[in-house]
Amino acid sequence: MKNQLLCDIGNTTFSFNDGRKAFVDDFDISSIKEDVYYISVNQYWEKRLSMQENWINLRSFVNCKKYYKSMGIDRIMACEAVDSAIVIDAGSAITVDLVKDSVHEGGYIYPGLVALAKCYKEISPALEVSFNFDIDLAKMPKNTEDALTYGAIAPLLSNIREISTELPVYLTGGDAERLLSFLPTATISHDLVFKGMKKLLEEH
Amino acid sequence: MKNQLLCDIGNTTFSFNDGRKAFVDDFDISSIKEDVYYISVNQYWEKRLSMQENWINLRSFVNCKKYYKSMGIDRIMACEAVDSAIVIDAGSAITVDLVKDSVHEGGYIYPGLVALAKCYKEISPALEVSFNFDIDLAKMPKNTEDALTYGAIAPLLSNIREISTELPVYLTGGDAERLLSFLPTATISHDLVFKGMKKLLEEH
Repeated sequence: MKNQLLCDIGNTTFSFNDGRKAFVDDFDISSIKEDVYYISVNQYWEKRLSMQENWINLRSFVNCKKYYKSMGIDRIMACEAVDSAIVIDAGSAITVDLVKDSVHEGGYIYPGLVALAKCYKEISPALEVSFNFDIDLAKMPKNTEDALTYGAIAPLLSNIREISTELPVYLTGGDAERLLSFLPTATISHDLVFKGMKKLLEEH
Repeated sequence: MKNQLLCDIGNTTFSFNDGRKAFVDDFDISSIKEDVYYISVNQYWEKRLSMQENWINLRSFVNCKKYYKSMGIDRIMACEAVDSAIVIDAGSAITVDLVKDSVHEGGYIYPGLVALAKCYKEISPALEVSFNFDIDLAKMPKNTEDALTYGAIAPLLSNIREISTELPVYLTGGDAERLLSFLPTATISHDLVFKGMKKLLEEH
């Protein structure tokens, strides 16, 4: 079980827990001979792999009563990895989930930083700027760049603080490092999804 | 001075304080014979009206040291209208400004509700839903519609509370009523910009 091969399939990439990555477009099923436990947010691949004996979908291992119906399986696995925590996955969207005593208390979806920058630009060309990640969010902004950066980040942080200042905060996803500077007590855990998959497999 | 004609020129509309409105594309300058004090975020019309004797630009009346350079003149006027308050203009963007003892302490720009809905949809077709404005933000969301509505609104509200729970909150702009249900102690003031213009004119 210790070296069990795990795979997290997204819309663009196959990511294995041994570090291998492959694009979904040119992934060769025959390259994997051993058993692999996987999750997939990619419906095409989930269907295709259901016909492969050595590809075992971990979706069926989840107690579906614990989560809401349309919640992404990657988000579910990140929640499975923790006992009591706020789990933030900062990718194309930023999901914020609250887990207490292994119970998912709910969660929400905030736009990702790239999506927010695009969103501002589409409101007005005057709002097309690069975010200033060195901003001091303790001060109210006094220029457009800071006004947009503060608007993109400070409300999210205020809400996270309002949910809890006591629970540990886990950060994962491509923009985890970006957010860490504003959440100094948070822990970055890029393998949170694999941790959840492994835990689920061990409990099964 | 009491019945002084005022005009707020946006990117699409001329709005007069007597209730008249006209689209910028087919506005007829000769329809206004009397003196009119105006502000304009519309650069084309600001330039054109600078050649009209009876159109007086209020921009020059503002103490520019009080505000940052690229701050919209409509946002400045809304701030001029209050002594100490949080001023929220909920339009295509949502601006949040802090004024204390007639001093602008800074402010930020959050995407408007329409822009946020579009932003989610562009992240993923799965995130295309209508916001649920009957949501109870005291509970963590447990379905996609609520997860997106909470993500769009709750962080903004948390931040406003964090700035101050004591200052009065003034709401203006097209989505003021939408936000009022979540900010029950706020006051809607759709003529905040005209109030600011009038106050500036009286002080001049």
